[in-house]
Amino acid sequence: MDRLRVVKGHGTENDFVIVPDLDGALELTPELTRALCDRHSGIGADGVLRVVRSENARESAEMSAEAEYFMDYRNADGSVASMCGNGVRVFVRYLQAVGVVDDYAAVATRGGVKRTWLTDEGDVIVDMGKPLALADRPVATAAPSIDAVPGVAVEMPNPHVVVAVPTRAELAALDLSRPPVIEPARPDGQNVEFVVRVGPRHLAMRVHERGVGETRSCGTGICAAVVAAEGSGPDGSTWQVDVPGGTCRVTWRTDGDVYLAGPAVLVAEIDLDPDWLDRY
Amino acid sequence: MDRLRVVKGHGTENDFVIVPDLDGALELTPELTRALCDRHSGIGADGVLRVVRSENARESAEMSAEAEYFMDYRNADGSVASMCGNGVRVFVRYLQAVGVVDDYAAVATRGGVKRTWLTDEGDVIVDMGKPLALADRPVATAAPSIDAVPGVAVEMPNPHVVVAVPTRAELAALDLSRPPVIEPARPDGQNVEFVVRVGPRHLAMRVHERGVGETRSCGTGICAAVVAAEGSGPDGSTWQVDVPGGTCRVTWRTDGDVYLAGPAVLVAEIDLDPDWLDRY
Repeated sequence: MDRLRVVKGHGTENDFVIVPDLDGALELTPELTRALCDRHSGIGADGVLRVVRSENARESAEMSAEAEYFMDYRNADGSVASMCGNGVRVFVRYLQAVGVVDDYAAVATRGGVKRTWLTDEGDVIVDMGKPLALADRPVATAAPSIDAVPGVAVEMPNPHVVVAVPTRAELAALDLSRPPVIEPARPDGQNVEFVVRVGPRHLAMRVHERGVGETRSCGTGICAAVVAAEGSGPDGSTWQVDVPGGTCRVTWRTDGDVYLAGPAVLVAEIDLDPDWLDRY
Repeated sequence: MDRLRVVKGHGTENDFVIVPDLDGALELTPELTRALCDRHSGIGADGVLRVVRSENARESAEMSAEAEYFMDYRNADGSVASMCGNGVRVFVRYLQAVGVVDDYAAVATRGGVKRTWLTDEGDVIVDMGKPLALADRPVATAAPSIDAVPGVAVEMPNPHVVVAVPTRAELAALDLSRPPVIEPARPDGQNVEFVVRVGPRHLAMRVHERGVGETRSCGTGICAAVVAAEGSGPDGSTWQVDVPGGTCRVTWRTDGDVYLAGPAVLVAEIDLDPDWLDRY
């Protein structure tokens, strides 16, 4: 590959390398994804968002009448993922910046079409779909600060366990450098959200993502935290959720869909060095 | 600021944002430095290398006859630093890429003029100056794997303590997520290098940098490790030092100067988004 121009952006400090590839011609190998996401020898990001016209990708062709662009999301380890709540906001911000969408955008993802809107403040709202709160109450242990606390299992549809923590001080003191122990664990592992109620419809949260570690933000985790906090079901009110990387707002509408609103920032346009590219 | 075009590069995965500012007109505030180096909300790097004509910066004006360019090095936390062995290689690679220096370059730094050469393989050699091996033998403890091991104190001129570890397995098992305990500590703290002899004139090393944590590489630390390993003084032979981010070669010449040779890679040219810049 001779040239590759990409964009870096983030949503509540969950950061992405956006790779425009409208024709679907780029071979985005796991090796190139890992190289782009490497924070020391590459650009650095939590994942890659490849931008393809839906009609030009096998995974999205059937959605092309409804959603013109396909978000091909890859984790930093090169694996394929279906959706990312912070990523889709950044994806839409990019489409707005290049002038191909306006206040409303529908985005094809491996998790189906996601509808998004711009707020008056410039944040992006995403319809994240219907959560599934499970009946079982796994017990969470986060050494050394807490142990044997019951959590709430929520599928968004990826698996989460939401654990209430009494105070901000206890939240801050949690050691999330190692994965929390969950009993019983979800079959494919889980993201674990530790949540404090800091006011009416206002949560503070830290998150440990499976296979990654503690992150600055997790979009589906923010939604899962509100689903767990609502308890008895959606009443359509809006919650504020503070994470280390910023603040999002979540509305669990009475039709059952969870709407996630939050910032999306473009940081830079990036021309990869041809000699660097030649290595991958 | 309307526009800022920078370059990202790395030397053995010690990475930098290079900010060309030949006229010395840019106000590189600690806030902007931190923003550029933030790995989630910015570009991400261990530090910033501002490129200024020596005659255009107060710190380097007296060196301008000898060295045309001044490397204004800043740590990721915004503080000013005098020198960086990996950084100067990347700085020179940038000067070569834009065509203003050839095989030889003299670079003005806050630690004086540094002379550099290109090797036949394209690596950059830096004359790092004369080390100072101190007589005292501080004791190092890196929980939980080792304790009460005597180290060697070396100034390069920044302070290092080099600690021998018997095997690669013990090196790999070290927990460097917390600073090693050094007794007595150097007055301003120290970088700590854990070193295994893996062959004749061949070391493997991990490093904990003061105020940073474990890093993929530390140029002065690589030099300090060889000074400690030579023991009785320089004999002019060349050592190979493997760090997590790659490999360097070190020659402690019989005139007393330590020469560090290693790779320097340019990753990308980066146009920062004007709205992003407006925040800093």
